[in-house]
Amino acid sequence: MSFNTFGRVLRFTTWGESHGPALGAVLDGCPPGLALGEGDIQPYLDRRRPGTSRFTTQRQEPDAVRILSGVFEGRTTGTPISLMIENVDQRSKDYSDVARAYRPGHADYAYDAKYGFRDYRGGGRSSARETAARVAAGAVARLVIPEVRIRAWVSAVGGDAIDPANFDADQIDANPFFCPDAAAAARWEGLIDAARKRGSSLGAVIECEATGVPAGWGAPLYAKLDSELAAACMSINAVKGVEIGDGFGAALLSGEQNADPMRPGKDGPEFRANHAGGIAGGISTGQPVRVRVAFKPTSSILIPVETVTREGEATDIITKGRHDPCVGIRGAPVVEAMVALVLADQKLLHRAQCG
Amino acid sequence: MSFNTFGRVLRFTTWGESHGPALGAVLDGCPPGLALGEGDIQPYLDRRRPGTSRFTTQRQEPDAVRILSGVFEGRTTGTPISLMIENVDQRSKDYSDVARAYRPGHADYAYDAKYGFRDYRGGGRSSARETAARVAAGAVARLVIPEVRIRAWVSAVGGDAIDPANFDADQIDANPFFCPDAAAAARWEGLIDAARKRGSSLGAVIECEATGVPAGWGAPLYAKLDSELAAACMSINAVKGVEIGDGFGAALLSGEQNADPMRPGKDGPEFRANHAGGIAGGISTGQPVRVRVAFKPTSSILIPVETVTREGEATDIITKGRHDPCVGIRGAPVVEAMVALVLADQKLLHRAQCG
Amino acid sequence: MSFNTFGRVLRFTTWGESHGPALGAVLDGCPPGLALGEGDIQPYLDRRRPGTSRFTTQRQEPDAVRILSGVFEGRTTGTPISLMIENVDQRSKDYSDVARAYRPGHADYAYDAKYGFRDYRGGGRSSARETAARVAAGAVARLVIPEVRIRAWVSAVGGDAIDPANFDADQIDANPFFCPDAAAAARWEGLIDAARKRGSSLGAVIECEATGVPAGWGAPLYAKLDSELAAACMSINAVKGVEIGDGFGAALLSGEQNADPMRPGKDGPEFRANHAGGIAGGISTGQPVRVRVAFKPTSSILIPVETVTREGEATDIITKGRHDPCVGIRGAPVVEAMVALVLADQKLLHRAQCG
Amino acid sequence: MSFNTFGRVLRFTTWGESHGPALGAVLDGCPPGLALGEGDIQPYLDRRRPGTSRFTTQRQEPDAVRILSGVFEGRTTGTPISLMIENVDQRSKDYSDVARAYRPGHADYAYDAKYGFRDYRGGGRSSARETAARVAAGAVARLVIPEVRIRAWVSAVGGDAIDPANFDADQIDANPFFCPDAAAAARWEGLIDAARKRGSSLGAVIECEATGVPAGWGAPLYAKLDSELAAACMSINAVKGVEIGDGFGAALLSGEQNADPMRPGKDGPEFRANHAGGIAGGISTGQPVRVRVAFKPTSSILIPVETVTREGEATDIITKGRHDPCVGIRGAPVVEAMVALVLADQKLLHRAQCG
Repeated sequence: MSFNTFGRVLRFTTWGESHGPALGAVLDGCPPGLALGEGDIQPYLDRRRPGTSRFTTQRQEPDAVRILSGVFEGRTTGTPISLMIENVDQRSKDYSDVARAYRPGHADYAYDAKYGFRDYRGGGRSSARETAARVAAGAVARLVIPEVRIRAWVSAVGGDAIDPANFDADQIDANPFFCPDAAAAARWEGLIDAARKRGSSLGAVIECEATGVPAGWGAPLYAKLDSELAAACMSINAVKGVEIGDGFGAALLSGEQNADPMRPGKDGPEFRANHAGGIAGGISTGQPVRVRVAFKPTSSILIPVETVTREGEATDIITKGRHDPCVGIRGAPVVEAMVALVLADQKLLHRAQCG
Repeated sequence: MSFNTFGRVLRFTTWGESHGPALGAVLDGCPPGLALGEGDIQPYLDRRRPGTSRFTTQRQEPDAVRILSGVFEGRTTGTPISLMIENVDQRSKDYSDVARAYRPGHADYAYDAKYGFRDYRGGGRSSARETAARVAAGAVARLVIPEVRIRAWVSAVGGDAIDPANFDADQIDANPFFCPDAAAAARWEGLIDAARKRGSSLGAVIECEATGVPAGWGAPLYAKLDSELAAACMSINAVKGVEIGDGFGAALLSGEQNADPMRPGKDGPEFRANHAGGIAGGISTGQPVRVRVAFKPTSSILIPVETVTREGEATDIITKGRHDPCVGIRGAPVVEAMVALVLADQKLLHRAQCG
Repeated sequence: MSFNTFGRVLRFTTWGESHGPALGAVLDGCPPGLALGEGDIQPYLDRRRPGTSRFTTQRQEPDAVRILSGVFEGRTTGTPISLMIENVDQRSKDYSDVARAYRPGHADYAYDAKYGFRDYRGGGRSSARETAARVAAGAVARLVIPEVRIRAWVSAVGGDAIDPANFDADQIDANPFFCPDAAAAARWEGLIDAARKRGSSLGAVIECEATGVPAGWGAPLYAKLDSELAAACMSINAVKGVEIGDGFGAALLSGEQNADPMRPGKDGPEFRANHAGGIAGGISTGQPVRVRVAFKPTSSILIPVETVTREGEATDIITKGRHDPCVGIRGAPVVEAMVALVLADQKLLHRAQCG
Repeated sequence: MSFNTFGRVLRFTTWGESHGPALGAVLDGCPPGLALGEGDIQPYLDRRRPGTSRFTTQRQEPDAVRILSGVFEGRTTGTPISLMIENVDQRSKDYSDVARAYRPGHADYAYDAKYGFRDYRGGGRSSARETAARVAAGAVARLVIPEVRIRAWVSAVGGDAIDPANFDADQIDANPFFCPDAAAAARWEGLIDAARKRGSSLGAVIECEATGVPAGWGAPLYAKLDSELAAACMSINAVKGVEIGDGFGAALLSGEQNADPMRPGKDGPEFRANHAGGIAGGISTGQPVRVRVAFKPTSSILIPVETVTREGEATDIITKGRHDPCVGIRGAPVVEAMVALVLADQKLLHRAQCG
């Protein structure tokens, strides 16, 4: 089934296609009494917005959010919050190529196989434009967890990774790549320009850290915090891998290397390491929650790829139009939003069970 | 909350602790009329069973499953199938150390932080013994998807990976490591023995492939097949990372490298590569579904680690008892089970929406 | 929590307040390929629409629905269908009375007790305007179950019941009361006029029949068809009772009176009676599904009622404004919608499990 | 699908058939730290237990409950609580009649239509024995809401109602009918004996009151407290109607009669009436929550009824064996359990959203 709802008690439902009149999210279960206006959401949408540099798609979307329900006199009422973003730059181009043949790496063939047909305009529902709705919902979720600070950045583009020694949080919003390493950002300009010019695209890795998460959020066994984060991040377009803490690196360690030793601290135990990424047994430990997410390269490229038509004939396809040369970059605000939505949901769940 | 249920329409709920009288699963939503007896489940439990070689914990558990409901005259009735496994070797050892201090890498501290206290006997609910219930449920799920063949293997132990050129499916059940590469299996004997002797432990990587999955299972956006697989696998004890297809490797590729070209085939399109792991846009493409899962090293080790007591005093802890030196190995049947459960659920969901 | 979603695989989420800019529904899980346009929904909204006779509220709302997503080239795509209805006649009256004191029979006090404050304009989220969203979603659900015909009518107003001998289905849409008995409709004019003139209001009973439901929809035990119908109908504003088949009347019968005898028929068994209302063991039997629903009188009345202010002082309150003198009347299209939504959901669930 | 789980955050799943080895419930989401032992559950099971008087089935079942998980050192741990009850008196009688033909009023035909076959022994999953699992789960739910007192009684048998003037709560457990009116209880002896002797059966009405429910539990719109109670009660075997407060009686009242006036009280508003049954807008008001439930007469009777065989031939059927002449009577503890489970779930949900 087409389940477009995520979350357990703080739940959001998204709707909308790339080239429809609008897209949106309905956020349900939000605590009452939180100060909320469009101004609390718009800055996050602006960070994700396309067209702000030559390194993203040139589609011009203001992504202006409207709150249609759930807020009264500037405060959440506890009833569903309907958020709507109008599409304004859905260019009426010729989609006959895409309608006729399947773009490898895209959902085209899978949608046809499942539904029998598809809205081929800009990818329809499978477009990454849907992530704007996530970012809007995530901005509200942040208000539910004021104790938590969430920050994501791009840690690698096309295999070129940042140098952790250069990590500078202030850099993240100072370049078009959400890159915390100024030197890497400079290199990525060239990398991405080169990819774009040859009609290709690049993959990326996003890292996200949430600090201030108290010990005790999450739960065994199928609402584990790490399991929810994995589902949340893997549901983002183009994501192919998710790691918590050391992730695949943990499989290389011995038990004693992987243990995060504890020492007495002034507010409970202090940890000497964080291989676990802030989660043990599916429950937060009070350490920073750390997630890594792999984005594949944008599938829309100008380099021809072999494919077949709907009628089963061999052909080659190129995807003209306005595309991100590295879709992972704009994934940073989306990962932040998903992490916020998971943490807010888990906070409320914890309060439900444990008071 | 403590959500111990997984799935959307084919749903299973597990219960039980390491040292309680029994553990089990209730599988709900199973189609009626499937031939089912304990003999269809037991072989899968036997593969996961501890104590079968010196490379796993020496706890002796027959893991004999009983079907308590949902089957009549050898066929499923469509009502819930209750599966129970009695614990028979919950040794009455002295747990005062574990009760008193937190084992790093374990859920001890997180459980205390969440619930205020914990069943410390053998890890209680956080014990990997719970995975027996998954394997039992997964065996039934396989009957729902006879068109699919699921096979998992260990592809690396302690950083020592198999050589893909040596891959031999017949080897997987021919050694105690679910290792498809006989040469690697031989090396792992030494590796694991050495780790065990020095009181340490090792991590592992599991790979799983499901063939025969037709195109069209899964759905946008929060019931994506890859999102469900990520949640399912990340919920397994000790798992820290999940990849679909090339996973993090995809982030290193260019768009044209990552594309899986299509050519006309006799039963629909044929793909020339499978970087995507059989999933595009959250929906199966008909190619083999491929998942990789990272297991951290067993946290129970005999090497002392710094920790704190419940009262907040510094101490060192070692975890005596019967432990797997590499818990990831026995993860292979568990990953298979979770993949089966996800696929069976998605098959039914697809049938619901698309007939 | 504020769960504004109903359904299991065909699920709808509603949002919006009486005096906000708009209200709507997101319908998720709809099968692909169904012909759908606003014209398939609007007639149902028009039946529920206020202001069409002097027997309903005089609020003038065109209730024009827009489809914002999920439809491409006139057919459902299988992705979420976003339906929006703008509020155009939310009169900017003086709400200071309602803001200050609690209207007995309304949700005012309960909302304040739960959320700490409330959107008091026209009842906010607790207004029956929300039911427009249900009717819109229900219109789409009908397309999922073309084999079923659903028809609701008002069978009693203020205790004055129709004469079953006079039942004429063609009358239902021939008077402003959805009344199948022309003689009763004539009487109700006077009854409702009198109530309205004295500032009072009346209750009503709605009956709904769904024919064409095949045997086999619904399921034990907590997705029983009757249980789902009860939840669906009891969630409608002002509903206080739900009966399936003979309902409370069944408690007066002996076992042999209540049995619905079966005889061989040309397409399976034929039943000689339908005390059960078409449902046995929570599963449809192939007989017409029959539901009865009790609506309390409209709580907004001009007769003063004792109450208290938010500050806890005694006062009397009357509810000025534009109100239905018998809110149950407009409940008929809402009950139809909820029954359609439940049946469509159960059809898909049945297909999921039983193929 | 066969959804055998009920609840949102405090959720229980039941399993088991009338003539299987056992039945049970898994209760998930229970708060940690509650004192719990079998002794807290058994008294409730004993009230529902068959065979305690000549007015119930003579099947002898001790209904001894075992707690298999979720409790450590006498306290709930926050993990799933598995409750099991063994069937000990599943008499190996001849079921060929029931296997061959459909008993009117029973689920026989509907199950066959849905699943293709059925466990016909004692009704299989459709047997009211399943309600033992609800009562066990409900006993734990009561511990979650110590502030609430829940009490159900039989208010009518075969149309013979109690006299409210005679209501004496102490009588409820002083006769085999859960009857609060000693005079009515005396009459019912004769009524039920007569029905039993002529091979017939009777219907009943149960009333349930929950006092101590604070204002604020429940929520718009599809988790309304009344909607949840309706679903919970309608899911009980043999139930055909549910009313909240005045129920269908409210449809006979005028607005001013139905209003529950409020006056200042020492702890918030005091209500002068309770037509609403303690719920407004789907949220509790602090008044007693009142539910009425109609049970049809037992469908298993010795009077022959016309029916058809599985092969579609006409026949008559009588249901020999051990049956309750009035199944509604033993419904009283079951209604209490379902009300407890709903209220406990809603308490936790309220805490989640509103803190």
